[in-house]
Amino acid sequence: MTNQSTPLIKQLVALIRLKSFENSLEFVDKLAENVITDLDLIVVKKISHVFSPTGITLGYILSQSHLVIHTYPEEGVIHVDLAICSDRSDKEFEKSLKYALSGHEVFSIEVETIEFEG
Amino acid sequence: MTNQSTPLIKQLVALIRLKSFENSLEFVDKLAENVITDLDLIVVKKISHVFSPTGITLGYILSQSHLVIHTYPEEGVIHVDLAICSDRSDKEFEKSLKYALSGHEVFSIEVETIEFEG
Repeated sequence: MTNQSTPLIKQLVALIRLKSFENSLEFVDKLAENVITDLDLIVVKKISHVFSPTGITLGYILSQSHLVIHTYPEEGVIHVDLAICSDRSDKEFEKSLKYALSGHEVFSIEVETIEFEG
Repeated sequence: MTNQSTPLIKQLVALIRLKSFENSLEFVDKLAENVITDLDLIVVKKISHVFSPTGITLGYILSQSHLVIHTYPEEGVIHVDLAICSDRSDKEFEKSLKYALSGHEVFSIEVETIEFEG
């Protein structure tokens, strides 16, 4: 983190629009697990909340920072926020999301990034 | 959230550099509570982790989305990630951070935003 060529914290945020998905914690769990495995993230702690009538938030404290997923099933939208101290490209992030959602009809994945230099 | 003039999700991310601060959960708790009160955020659930040797992560699931704070005491850096469905300006966010850190010598607060339209 002290190397000036490496961002101190990089944030990768995606808004995913897809045809439909289950309003279940299991669905979000599976999505998160795929991203965690694919990007070699190390989980320290986990938290989740099932909103009424719909919507789920699943958050992880990572050794590298955090991953938070919000779902909005009524709008067909998933928001994924990954903050990491190590470097991952937006292409890697998008690829891991596509992989995690294979089998679903994904309309679009918009990825935005924020980098703070060390 | 269906009004097109309102962002579906707005993310306000700050990197704060300050002279020194305690490596304690109490310090981060107080910082978070000030921001939560100042910005009228509604907490649903809370999670925290104290890293060894230093560094604390404190996360909240909000009714509006999430707030995650990471501290890096050895670098004099605090990272604050606020994702909200309602609108808050980066100026309001920065003001609430300054207020929360009054009494500390703050060198800089960089704020970056990401907005996804509904």
